[in-house]
Amino acid sequence: MREIFYSVTSLKDLFSKLDKLNVTPPKVEVSVWEALGRVLAEDFRSPVNVPHFRRAARDGYAVVARDTFGAGEEEPVTLKVVGEVKAGDEQAPQVSEGTCVRVATGALMPDGADAVVMVEHTVEGEGHIKVYRAVTPGENIVEEGKDIRRGELVVKEGRVLSPQDVGAIAATGVEKVRVYGKLKVAVASTGDELVKLGEELRPGKIYDVNSVTLINAVRASGGEPFYMGIVRDNREAIIKVLRSALTTCDLVVFSGGTSKGPGDAVPSALRELEALDFMVHGLAMKPGKPTAVASHKGKPIFMLPGHPTSALLTYYVIVDPYIRKWSYLPPREGMEVKARAGVRIFSEEGRLEFKPVRLRKEENELIAYPTPTGSEAITTLTSTHGYIEIKANRSFIEQGEEVTVKLFRPIWEINEPEEEFL
Amino acid sequence: MREIFYSVTSLKDLFSKLDKLNVTPPKVEVSVWEALGRVLAEDFRSPVNVPHFRRAARDGYAVVARDTFGAGEEEPVTLKVVGEVKAGDEQAPQVSEGTCVRVATGALMPDGADAVVMVEHTVEGEGHIKVYRAVTPGENIVEEGKDIRRGELVVKEGRVLSPQDVGAIAATGVEKVRVYGKLKVAVASTGDELVKLGEELRPGKIYDVNSVTLINAVRASGGEPFYMGIVRDNREAIIKVLRSALTTCDLVVFSGGTSKGPGDAVPSALRELEALDFMVHGLAMKPGKPTAVASHKGKPIFMLPGHPTSALLTYYVIVDPYIRKWSYLPPREGMEVKARAGVRIFSEEGRLEFKPVRLRKEENELIAYPTPTGSEAITTLTSTHGYIEIKANRSFIEQGEEVTVKLFRPIWEINEPEEEFL
Repeated sequence: MREIFYSVTSLKDLFSKLDKLNVTPPKVEVSVWEALGRVLAEDFRSPVNVPHFRRAARDGYAVVARDTFGAGEEEPVTLKVVGEVKAGDEQAPQVSEGTCVRVATGALMPDGADAVVMVEHTVEGEGHIKVYRAVTPGENIVEEGKDIRRGELVVKEGRVLSPQDVGAIAATGVEKVRVYGKLKVAVASTGDELVKLGEELRPGKIYDVNSVTLINAVRASGGEPFYMGIVRDNREAIIKVLRSALTTCDLVVFSGGTSKGPGDAVPSALRELEALDFMVHGLAMKPGKPTAVASHKGKPIFMLPGHPTSALLTYYVIVDPYIRKWSYLPPREGMEVKARAGVRIFSEEGRLEFKPVRLRKEENELIAYPTPTGSEAITTLTSTHGYIEIKANRSFIEQGEEVTVKLFRPIWEINEPEEEFL
Repeated sequence: MREIFYSVTSLKDLFSKLDKLNVTPPKVEVSVWEALGRVLAEDFRSPVNVPHFRRAARDGYAVVARDTFGAGEEEPVTLKVVGEVKAGDEQAPQVSEGTCVRVATGALMPDGADAVVMVEHTVEGEGHIKVYRAVTPGENIVEEGKDIRRGELVVKEGRVLSPQDVGAIAATGVEKVRVYGKLKVAVASTGDELVKLGEELRPGKIYDVNSVTLINAVRASGGEPFYMGIVRDNREAIIKVLRSALTTCDLVVFSGGTSKGPGDAVPSALRELEALDFMVHGLAMKPGKPTAVASHKGKPIFMLPGHPTSALLTYYVIVDPYIRKWSYLPPREGMEVKARAGVRIFSEEGRLEFKPVRLRKEENELIAYPTPTGSEAITTLTSTHGYIEIKANRSFIEQGEEVTVKLFRPIWEINEPEEEFL
């Protein structure tokens, strides 16, 4: 009988090889208006004091604090009103003993004043106010630089920018920030049977599903996908696309053409390429066994299986974590939930298996059911919420056993009430 | 003393008023290449069978199954090889009794054949093969329409599209899907003290932080923000911007100019507008008390406080859930974690309070500490992971008490190892 498989490598070995690669995105400038979710590439320190002037923290009256000492509900102090400062006024009248200036929250504090009496504690008369509560020096005033001092660290390098982070940067008046650029990820599908979406489907042909799936998955991982098209199953075509991908992108994801034998197109084509370092061809996991990974001058090339379910699961297990890591994005690790196996879930002993599952909430517990699969089933993953990992030394997970489900998406995005799922 | 507050409404009352509004996004077409995270606006049913031809599920030989009956390791059956079909070939030779055709996974099945013998179970000789294992009719074949039948529901209306969902749609050859358009959200900041980013900052002026924060927050909620600019604190300017916003957008978010008194610009300006339904001015929550909400011919207008921390917290509590709901996006509810209060957390009794907190992992437990606030502090929220809700009848949360933290971002995005947070 024909030998059709190859040496398999453990995931651990693959990961330790990938860990040695040094893939780094460039630093790019983006506008704070568009910076949501980007990763800050250098510490952001404020070029200015915020606020950059002494301002009133309340609506009220700017006073000399000691004028109010002893004021109380029964013994108000009377002060002459010598002017007003609204928010945004660039100048303010001077305050001296016995006088005050009406101020709005955020207004420039008048020179001479050292506190603000809140409007609630005053009654205004003709040209004067009565103050019913004493204030201490500094009360209801924001000193220059109180919120952010010039040179202060506002947001640290590596932060995934939230609305509030960009808000803090904007408070210093800075409009552009340096973030890590998105990694450019070339995506190509291999196969003589593939047809572009929208084209006529003749017998023997199928639509190129994997490019669509993987391009959207790359976006979900934080990369910038580049579609290299459908590649025919011959060495020249594959090498041509690979060279073009290596010129323009930071990493390459092929799907299809990885099974050893007649269809083993991509790894065979690449094996003869100069300067190519083959890391693995054959992974000790199911699905994903025919996966190959290589690197060319430090740029990783992932060759995923052609079956849509296998391609996407393998992407989630080996490509997504590295795109995130190399992009300085946090890992998806938190996106896991504990559940109980709803039935006995079988697995092939001797091989690490990733089993797609569907979650269901039953009496406040999450129950995981294996999705009916079949390597052909394109629809398998649409009804799947995530996957569980079954170690090589297990031949099944017992019904009721606790499992960790790695979710494809945050749990609150799973909204299928009509089916009573979650 | 001057009366400066207004009647306050409970959040519950505001929510029941907002629930009566009927804000709906249009349905728009997007390409499956760009459909990640969009909400499908109608059931997607397949226009074709997938696969649309009978295909081989394995590399091997297409045979007449009954020819192999009785074959075993000791008694191989010999068949004549009359041709080959590769993946993508549009035609296949006929198979008849005693003959077979070499097929690749995914190849068009030859007429006459009703099973595929896997290559592992054969040995090929000169023009013939020896078959060492019997197959049953249908074995290793994928029938036409087996994965998706014509007219079958592939992805249901309301689904937030994942890479695998768009992959399943692509399998049917369809390139455009109908999704809900993003709600257009006008964002404007009011205040004479505000200056655009990048402009010179004179005394009394501050940069417009809220527009930047809210525009990024609207994007995080799934809306499409439109920046209406800085609005000066006078009725004409406010009404002009409001009219323009109502013409182009589905909802409007103002910040600033909501405190009753001299700076009560936005609600005062709007109160006199025809066809305007004022829902609340004054909310029983802290921060956010001066918040006002109105609607104009069904379009909601949110008037948030001007302080950056108050504006953003109020946005998270009252605007974000409704943008998500009206966009058919799932609520953020799942984005909560349980934690223990690290210190006694004080609250003003008689008012529902939202307290920003910072999380820390201590001995495998999450501990929540209140972030030092001050309504001026622009930086408060950058060091904050979420907030807790303290009911009106509580004056504090005891140290060690369990609290529910509503996170600003998924927990796995909180990556601040250097400070031992999470």
